Amino acid sequence: MAMTTRIEAAISRAISIGQGRGAVPPRLSSALRYATEPGGARIRPTILMSVAMACGDDRPMLSDAAASALELIHCASLVHDDLPCFDDADIRRGKPSVHRAYSEPLAVLTGDSLIVLAFEILARQSGHAPDRVAQMIITLAQRTGMPGGICAGQGWESECDIDLSAYHQAKTGALFIAATQMGALAAGQEAEPWFELGARIGEAFQVADDLRDALYDADTLGKPAGQDDLNGRPNAVTLLGVQGAMSRLKDILGGAIASIPSCPGEAQLAAMVNMYAEKLTPVATQVSTPRHRV
Amino acid sequence: MAMTTRIEAAISRAISIGQGRGAVPPRLSSALRYATEPGGARIRPTILMSVAMACGDDRPMLSDAAASALELIHCASLVHDDLPCFDDADIRRGKPSVHRAYSEPLAVLTGDSLIVLAFEILARQSGHAPDRVAQMIITLAQRTGMPGGICAGQGWESECDIDLSAYHQAKTGALFIAATQMGALAAGQEAEPWFELGARIGEAFQVADDLRDALYDADTLGKPAGQDDLNGRPNAVTLLGVQGAMSRLKDILGGAIASIPSCPGEAQLAAMVNMYAEKLTPVATQVSTPRHRV
Repeated sequence: MAMTTRIEAAISRAISIGQGRGAVPPRLSSALRYATEPGGARIRPTILMSVAMACGDDRPMLSDAAASALELIHCASLVHDDLPCFDDADIRRGKPSVHRAYSEPLAVLTGDSLIVLAFEILARQSGHAPDRVAQMIITLAQRTGMPGGICAGQGWESECDIDLSAYHQAKTGALFIAATQMGALAAGQEAEPWFELGARIGEAFQVADDLRDALYDADTLGKPAGQDDLNGRPNAVTLLGVQGAMSRLKDILGGAIASIPSCPGEAQLAAMVNMYAEKLTPVATQVSTPRHRV
Repeated sequence: MAMTTRIEAAISRAISIGQGRGAVPPRLSSALRYATEPGGARIRPTILMSVAMACGDDRPMLSDAAASALELIHCASLVHDDLPCFDDADIRRGKPSVHRAYSEPLAVLTGDSLIVLAFEILARQSGHAPDRVAQMIITLAQRTGMPGGICAGQGWESECDIDLSAYHQAKTGALFIAATQMGALAAGQEAEPWFELGARIGEAFQVADDLRDALYDADTLGKPAGQDDLNGRPNAVTLLGVQGAMSRLKDILGGAIASIPSCPGEAQLAAMVNMYAEKLTPVATQVSTPRHRV
């Protein structure tokens, strides 16, 4: 099965568990699937699955559960980040954001339910390998909540004095670190050696996202553009300029490849990072009118 | 150690883990503790701990983790329920609600972080008893999220046609069912026989809460009063009248005691339910001016 098909199937199975049968509130049930389909690039589960396969993928059900749990958390974060009290985004992935399509209460509950479902999906696989599952749950929790997960990252935006390094690692890096570490754990490997690859991929995506946010329009992004500038958030383009940010991106991706731990699928993993490098790097060359003066 | 001291210590330890050290966003970190202290009656963890002790409490660390995880979820639900898009409550437990004290974004993140922390706290105990922990995580997830947890309960309030039985069991019953079942699981017992006790205690609290909401003022409640009436939510007092609701409460508590599974601490558990029955039952006799005409 192609990896994308496998990931979509795992996510769909997870949502079906959350939707249940019988007496369930139908709009919230519908919103769970709406928030997760059609997906974006499914980058985080793809990285997770790539690492698991590079490490042998000896328990595919664990990798499937980990990939879908991670994507559920990512989707939950998008739903909550889009809320009026955060980005107040009307559009996400080219369609109305969940609070626009369903209401604000249902968007809060959709995010909450997806978070909970992620942990349930993992725990349900415990019988196959309790130690791996417990470590995956702890890893996902630490990269999602406080003090170092994406909640912490978002929390930094409510502070006057931001610790930029902690902010970026938590805000964008955390779920990429979860991706590489959970992929390794699903395949029975230690998590720690996979920290750096996740952290560097996360940094690369942050810089690429900053470039996109600064340079693309809403139609291209599928969400409101220029949000960092509008909300006074730190942005690599503001700090380094477009060319500086592009150079930084290349350096980070080179470091990412160098950091890949020795494993059977090391070469394929390096190829995957290179593929992302190609996808990310031309970002500024397609742009007609940069909105930032840099 | 007295049970209340033990529960408070477990919750405080859990919050300390969520707060972390070093570079963490200080306001979100502070909000985590604000949302959980000082506690209310800690009814859910008290029931959980009572069941665990009635079943032998052979792994106290598991009971502690389960009790604190359950209370974190309850506190998270209060923080999110108080948000402007739900109850828009300014006051909770006699002090400003989290979104009033910290801001709406931080209230969303506080709830999210508490949910995540609950599962992390449980998973950290996996080494002691992986099977019990996995079952506790699944139980907590099912009683928190979709399709049958408190998120589902809240989700029913966004529907035109409410399935009242599913609504009540999910909205109020769910965390009481989690309490009895997680208490049994923490002590190595099966969860299923403990469903009915949790469900009946949950029903009793729902009826008692309906009585309080209908009859008490905001000062007594420590939160806005008359919310059900204001928001057109189903309420036992509206359906049965005050005396009818009082009779219903007694019947339910009698059924709860009858449902207690055979275990070493059966008598103490029955005493606990009776204690709650006393606390709950006089509710309407202290009231001077009922706001509902019933």
